[in-house]
Amino acid sequence: MQSNDIQADSEFSASERDAVYKCIFNRRDVRGQFLSDPIPDAVLARLLTAAHHAPSVGFMQPWDFIVVRNPAVRQRVRDAFQAANLEAAEMFEDEKQKTYRRLKLEGIVEAPIGICITCDRSRTGKVVLGRTHQADMDLYSAVCAVQNLWLAARAENIGVGWVSIIKHDDLREALAIPPSIQPIAYLCVGYVSHFFQKPDLEAAGWLPRMPLSDAVWIDRWNERNASDPLFGCL
Amino acid sequence: MQSNDIQADSEFSASERDAVYKCIFNRRDVRGQFLSDPIPDAVLARLLTAAHHAPSVGFMQPWDFIVVRNPAVRQRVRDAFQAANLEAAEMFEDEKQKTYRRLKLEGIVEAPIGICITCDRSRTGKVVLGRTHQADMDLYSAVCAVQNLWLAARAENIGVGWVSIIKHDDLREALAIPPSIQPIAYLCVGYVSHFFQKPDLEAAGWLPRMPLSDAVWIDRWNERNASDPLFGCL
Repeated sequence: MQSNDIQADSEFSASERDAVYKCIFNRRDVRGQFLSDPIPDAVLARLLTAAHHAPSVGFMQPWDFIVVRNPAVRQRVRDAFQAANLEAAEMFEDEKQKTYRRLKLEGIVEAPIGICITCDRSRTGKVVLGRTHQADMDLYSAVCAVQNLWLAARAENIGVGWVSIIKHDDLREALAIPPSIQPIAYLCVGYVSHFFQKPDLEAAGWLPRMPLSDAVWIDRWNERNASDPLFGCL
Repeated sequence: MQSNDIQADSEFSASERDAVYKCIFNRRDVRGQFLSDPIPDAVLARLLTAAHHAPSVGFMQPWDFIVVRNPAVRQRVRDAFQAANLEAAEMFEDEKQKTYRRLKLEGIVEAPIGICITCDRSRTGKVVLGRTHQADMDLYSAVCAVQNLWLAARAENIGVGWVSIIKHDDLREALAIPPSIQPIAYLCVGYVSHFFQKPDLEAAGWLPRMPLSDAVWIDRWNERNASDPLFGCL
């Protein structure tokens, strides 16, 4: 049993709290505003360190980070996106398909680097504390690493875009990911000319932002008392 | 097509950036330090708003939030944890099992509220932009909401603990979650007496923190040049 000191001076001031909210609210999925400016290694190291400090089930830290600098490798990933995206477009009907085809959905080649975050499901052994009754907890841990990296990037004024329109097999081939490793996210990462106010899909009229109060229940599903003071604050 | 203004004054200063990193590094999975102090509704609303601003695939916003205040409901969740935890302990061998049984793994009853985050996989229809080739992207979106809430809570000096040692069926029953809805996380949420420096499991000697450099590859899996300047920064 090692020691575990208490965090000292770890209370958050109002301005520190506001910075965290600014980061959460101003984070965007960036597709079209990447600049080619290189990301200094010290900054990239901070992003990876933030991801590495995500919560992980049983402290298994199942993630790996493939930093893709090589333009030829990024081009292969882009080609794989392109193939999947043509298939994806066909799945939407009429007007929705027309809108879909107009959307810019990735910046794989424009962004100076990609980061692929993966999950090693067998890391630390077969029985993992906290995964005994929920088998996907290790995947979820790797997703928390994605979100940590994304927020840290925003605080560094760096944009991130998550490319999910791609077949895992193609991504495995492009990045030599072995069968035992589960790809979680391919991220385009780079400085940007600007961040938009709204998510691209909201601005494009694809879907509206849902009222938060529609998604909140009290004590049990489908139970909600509109006079509950919480709803006055949402 | 609606308008999409550019974010103004959204550059992060060094002190704002540092506040975000402080939040990421000081976030802990809290099990044993909860105080009974109530969380003001305005603060709770901020946490939920932060979660609601997570990235979501195709902007589907698949999450719901069940805020569990009722002590009897929390006790049912606690009972379900207890049943699963006894099963879980049996899965570890010898010394590991002894250590497991000594660990405090949840604060369901002590924390003044629970928040269950779920995923409605059919929200916005069958075909979801960005989920066409990766079926789990909606679950991952809900996980990003968990991480946003967790970080916002830390910035509010509020502790959060994720309880995954519980059967989904028991959680469904306790919270009346319908079969069409996928539970993602049950979170214990409350003010705390203190935050620890290290994750509980690291301090307990369960597992060490992995060196980040062991998890970083360049361009392709298993490729790494130790003289790459990035490794000097990790």
